[in-house]
Amino acid sequence: MAGNSIGKEFVVTSFGESHGKLVGVIVDGCPAGLPLSEADVQVELDRRIPLQKPEIVSGRIEKDVVEISSGVFNGFTTGAPICMTVKNKETRSSDYDAIQDLPRPAHADYTGRVKYGGFNDYRGGGRFSGRVTVALIMAGVVAKKLLSSADVAIVAYTKAIGKVKMGKAPSFAEIRKSKYDSAVRCPDLACAEKMEDAIVDAKKEGESLGGIIECVALNVPAGVGEPLYDALDADIAKALFNVPAVKGVEFGAGFAVAELKGSESNDAYQIQKGKVVTATNQAGGILGGTSSGMPIIARVAVKPTPSIAKEQKTVNLSKMEDATIKVGGRHDPCVVPKAVPVVEAAMAITLTDHMLRGGFIPKVLKGQK
Amino acid sequence: MAGNSIGKEFVVTSFGESHGKLVGVIVDGCPAGLPLSEADVQVELDRRIPLQKPEIVSGRIEKDVVEISSGVFNGFTTGAPICMTVKNKETRSSDYDAIQDLPRPAHADYTGRVKYGGFNDYRGGGRFSGRVTVALIMAGVVAKKLLSSADVAIVAYTKAIGKVKMGKAPSFAEIRKSKYDSAVRCPDLACAEKMEDAIVDAKKEGESLGGIIECVALNVPAGVGEPLYDALDADIAKALFNVPAVKGVEFGAGFAVAELKGSESNDAYQIQKGKVVTATNQAGGILGGTSSGMPIIARVAVKPTPSIAKEQKTVNLSKMEDATIKVGGRHDPCVVPKAVPVVEAAMAITLTDHMLRGGFIPKVLKGQK
Amino acid sequence: MAGNSIGKEFVVTSFGESHGKLVGVIVDGCPAGLPLSEADVQVELDRRIPLQKPEIVSGRIEKDVVEISSGVFNGFTTGAPICMTVKNKETRSSDYDAIQDLPRPAHADYTGRVKYGGFNDYRGGGRFSGRVTVALIMAGVVAKKLLSSADVAIVAYTKAIGKVKMGKAPSFAEIRKSKYDSAVRCPDLACAEKMEDAIVDAKKEGESLGGIIECVALNVPAGVGEPLYDALDADIAKALFNVPAVKGVEFGAGFAVAELKGSESNDAYQIQKGKVVTATNQAGGILGGTSSGMPIIARVAVKPTPSIAKEQKTVNLSKMEDATIKVGGRHDPCVVPKAVPVVEAAMAITLTDHMLRGGFIPKVLKGQK
Amino acid sequence: MAGNSIGKEFVVTSFGESHGKLVGVIVDGCPAGLPLSEADVQVELDRRIPLQKPEIVSGRIEKDVVEISSGVFNGFTTGAPICMTVKNKETRSSDYDAIQDLPRPAHADYTGRVKYGGFNDYRGGGRFSGRVTVALIMAGVVAKKLLSSADVAIVAYTKAIGKVKMGKAPSFAEIRKSKYDSAVRCPDLACAEKMEDAIVDAKKEGESLGGIIECVALNVPAGVGEPLYDALDADIAKALFNVPAVKGVEFGAGFAVAELKGSESNDAYQIQKGKVVTATNQAGGILGGTSSGMPIIARVAVKPTPSIAKEQKTVNLSKMEDATIKVGGRHDPCVVPKAVPVVEAAMAITLTDHMLRGGFIPKVLKGQK
Repeated sequence: MAGNSIGKEFVVTSFGESHGKLVGVIVDGCPAGLPLSEADVQVELDRRIPLQKPEIVSGRIEKDVVEISSGVFNGFTTGAPICMTVKNKETRSSDYDAIQDLPRPAHADYTGRVKYGGFNDYRGGGRFSGRVTVALIMAGVVAKKLLSSADVAIVAYTKAIGKVKMGKAPSFAEIRKSKYDSAVRCPDLACAEKMEDAIVDAKKEGESLGGIIECVALNVPAGVGEPLYDALDADIAKALFNVPAVKGVEFGAGFAVAELKGSESNDAYQIQKGKVVTATNQAGGILGGTSSGMPIIARVAVKPTPSIAKEQKTVNLSKMEDATIKVGGRHDPCVVPKAVPVVEAAMAITLTDHMLRGGFIPKVLKGQK
Repeated sequence: MAGNSIGKEFVVTSFGESHGKLVGVIVDGCPAGLPLSEADVQVELDRRIPLQKPEIVSGRIEKDVVEISSGVFNGFTTGAPICMTVKNKETRSSDYDAIQDLPRPAHADYTGRVKYGGFNDYRGGGRFSGRVTVALIMAGVVAKKLLSSADVAIVAYTKAIGKVKMGKAPSFAEIRKSKYDSAVRCPDLACAEKMEDAIVDAKKEGESLGGIIECVALNVPAGVGEPLYDALDADIAKALFNVPAVKGVEFGAGFAVAELKGSESNDAYQIQKGKVVTATNQAGGILGGTSSGMPIIARVAVKPTPSIAKEQKTVNLSKMEDATIKVGGRHDPCVVPKAVPVVEAAMAITLTDHMLRGGFIPKVLKGQK
Repeated sequence: MAGNSIGKEFVVTSFGESHGKLVGVIVDGCPAGLPLSEADVQVELDRRIPLQKPEIVSGRIEKDVVEISSGVFNGFTTGAPICMTVKNKETRSSDYDAIQDLPRPAHADYTGRVKYGGFNDYRGGGRFSGRVTVALIMAGVVAKKLLSSADVAIVAYTKAIGKVKMGKAPSFAEIRKSKYDSAVRCPDLACAEKMEDAIVDAKKEGESLGGIIECVALNVPAGVGEPLYDALDADIAKALFNVPAVKGVEFGAGFAVAELKGSESNDAYQIQKGKVVTATNQAGGILGGTSSGMPIIARVAVKPTPSIAKEQKTVNLSKMEDATIKVGGRHDPCVVPKAVPVVEAAMAITLTDHMLRGGFIPKVLKGQK
Repeated sequence: MAGNSIGKEFVVTSFGESHGKLVGVIVDGCPAGLPLSEADVQVELDRRIPLQKPEIVSGRIEKDVVEISSGVFNGFTTGAPICMTVKNKETRSSDYDAIQDLPRPAHADYTGRVKYGGFNDYRGGGRFSGRVTVALIMAGVVAKKLLSSADVAIVAYTKAIGKVKMGKAPSFAEIRKSKYDSAVRCPDLACAEKMEDAIVDAKKEGESLGGIIECVALNVPAGVGEPLYDALDADIAKALFNVPAVKGVEFGAGFAVAELKGSESNDAYQIQKGKVVTATNQAGGILGGTSSGMPIIARVAVKPTPSIAKEQKTVNLSKMEDATIKVGGRHDPCVVPKAVPVVEAAMAITLTDHMLRGGFIPKVLKGQK
């Protein structure tokens, strides 16, 4: 047991449940001297829920208000653990009485019950709820501010929803600028509209959709990552698989690499403006578990929301007999838009951990705002 | 730094370099009372290199002989750290003089040099060499014996080489029985022949190929995995990305899940012979980071061998100018066959770690042979 | 950085500052099914401050009220992280303006300022304040309940204050019964009175006193502890040195062992009621870093409270010149009584961690109240 | 299980048994660019055994020859794990047949048998043997070279053997110069002679002696240590309690602090040559778990060698009845002299780990010899 922390120098510990009092996070290992306020965190919480298109969002729209209760003094981090919490308000726990005995397919109801002997807080998925990702988002704000102090920038965005796929991505700056303009967090606004339509259609059918999210990190210096087993890609992948609903992670050319020839897969080195770069980036910025200085590019596959309106087959665990369930509660027909900032946070947290480990971020910052 | 260990209760620490004295591994946390001999390990080392088809193997064919130098007494593990080593013999280090300044594309030469300030042992890739995976294979033998004591069985096999893809997989037992009959470790021997031909063709062109490996674990009980952040899939993925050349990892339906609807992606529960099972296994045996009792299914994408005979563009790091390189040394035109047992070992090591963490394997075994 | 957690399976993470919003703790790795309520924790918080003798207590007497905000559901632990906090109320931060530049001797003002570049929360010692030990006490309640489920019992008590030393200790049961009857937590009430007098006298002189605390754990089964380097005594000592003001830790005969001969120091084995015991317990219950089944006995030396009324020499860190300081604020003339429950908690936390690691406490409890 | 590593950035993993093939250590996390040779390590191994006075040494005098088999290339560390081993030669395993059933008092025979279900290698104490400390000594050489690159110097020496106590210690430089001149590693050579006589006398009686070792570290910069729970003193104490036979650890004034008043215990700050120092050093160089810049001073109490020639009471574990034992094998009548370099190594390893964690030693050294 005891698996609720991630990272070695920048250690993020999550606590709280979907329908308990709160969701919170402790960030231990943040250097002293980083300007940090509740407002910094609130900005990201406020854009977590895609309000532009209420049809594609669950009924549970909480205004999450962050409270920072330790580790910040006079506007700067102190080097002590930072505790950040948001209270749960919109909880209709009675929605979940049924699932005690009838595990919802593709949710963690069954595995959680087995693992914790039935003592787990099953309401709304409890610890397994997507709501708990708020912890990652809050920690991700601290990580992104630290990365920013070292000139590293990150963005994640939606690349596909169901069968609707975005074409060539615009520039990093454009993605950052426009991705929050669409409810689906896709920077290609024409494509975004089709994605939204696809979600609305699925919802009408009592169905749900999945998709693909891409995450890019710019300006990560070469040499980040700790071979052999704390390889940068290995630790990023670990963090990304901790984002609920992710079933696949790939870097650079990813799974497509299996069909390439060596000469197509190898990235040729060249000197550009006095720096070593590669002509292509099939590697996704990581070689031998270590950053190469090229953009880090990761993609994740997100499964359709398990909660669908259609009746589904399940079992009654008390009676040990076959049963059916119609999942109640309020659910997003597609979790990809909400997963986008979580993917960004998971990438930021891992990069921060590794940049601290490698000495790329100092132990005490200068404190400039 | 200090990233050469993996696992929390079953801790595997790798050491050694491709062209140094040896490659070795320390396994800490193995319960006392497991029968273990050098012969057990030797069996797996002996079938690491696909000798059935010498054309697809590099010239470096070492007979690796394992030595166990601690942690075993009177034929049983003692509970103390187990040290296992193989000596390096077939090392032609002069082959590598050139790469000090001319990093080979898609290898870790450049990132290693940057990270370690030029002090890294660059010969044959040093720590980054595929040869170092022998450490995982040796530790994997211990892991598989422990899993076997708990009735868990694992197999990995080649599913695709380049564009040659296997059809429906035979049964688990058949895969285990026949995969080593082919040089490419594909249990479909007709398909295996086509894969071998594709590799030979690529080699003739001065090229290399990648592929897909699938790994299946049977009889893992429900409840293995430590949510939230030491999720079972997250830790398996971390281990798999530590296998050199892996660029993608997926579970169950994997990336295909992005195009499914909820009702296609959800696995319906049902009672079968008094046990809870699912009708399908899109989840690949893991829900909420915890095993469900269904087979665990993971797939990895392996890139083509970076070393190819064709001349490639690179840079001269001393002169900081563009250059070309023809990679010398002896190399496999496709590393997929050699990666198969490493994937199996990585899965076994992670499952063992998590089964020990969850109390599914006792701290002291009974010692029956 | 990131050193605010202790333990490997039972992981205790502390957060909060003396004069911030709160002091809190996350307990990760607590098995599911342990009955736990705020009332359980409140009992221990209520007797933390020795109210029987107000003269020996600082003016800061807070009624600390615990809030459990995660990890407990329907009266039982869920297996998820348990967050427990107490709010800070009695904070007169203006008392501490002076110490920004004038470090108080024997406090952590200077080392904290150097380490965190001046960004640390210096008010009341901030993270270094004795107040933060409330985190250990709260986590200790959970640990003691777990130990109790395995029949292990712990008690700590005051053995000496300054030069007043207790004679032979009464029985374990009597210590538990009567130690809280005295303000100094000494079960020998006649001796306790002398200790209280000594503290009052020291206070009148503008001085402070230290002392010795002994901690005993009964019924720890043989075989707890993870040799070599996570030895039980090593990890208990680490936890005890994390109790503020502790300058020495010893087990069994402790430092006196240096003057003994082998035959005096060795504990002879004997069979008693069918069990292996030792005639003496010079080892303090630990051999080779592993519990022997005999009572575990540890002692710590606690230094006099650094804050004294007398004027002291210090330096002005801004001007880098010699200076003097009269320490303001409200301080205990002897921290030994308040340290007693912290020592008990530190011992309980470490034993729990090791009993979980060794499989002596199950991963899921039965949930009987 | 899995407790055979110590440290977080400078990770030392021990393996091997007293009467197995070898004793070894893996050092992971050593920066690249440190000059390191087998000769560096051999020097320390050669002076481990106090040959000046053969009467006080066990008959087992092995010339331990170190082999470095990874992590060093062209005379410098590479950043990869360093494997160092010494082979066991002088093993008379038959001496230990008796102890399978008859645990030697004050040894780990009984606890080891219970913990590992009888599968532990009991010969010569196996993993629990003092011989295994060779691993710490080898790792300590690397640590001391790293510390030396940051101007930190360490020395440990014998302060007392039985009732013979050294007076005021000479200067740090003199201790380093003369401690190895005496068989007991006491820099006061007149006192050393009395210590040697005391050991010889004890041996004649069939007895053994313990003692006190002091360890001093100079020039540790202020700010080393990770509050709260990875406090510098806590981690040093953990390492020191991992030295076999240690029953007590104290810093600065240590246990004597319990009888002091605040004004005697507090170290007054003053400016000296533009630096902040303290007039006294009762704290032993550590405040709030963080180094203050003053010398770090620790002392340990070492128990008398458990193996004595006198007949002792024990039990027969197979028959579960009382028994007696005369301990065979070859044993030192006092292990203090051999423990001195181990204490030094334990201190060096912990300081190195914390200096790396705090960023006081760079990740890549310049490589000057």
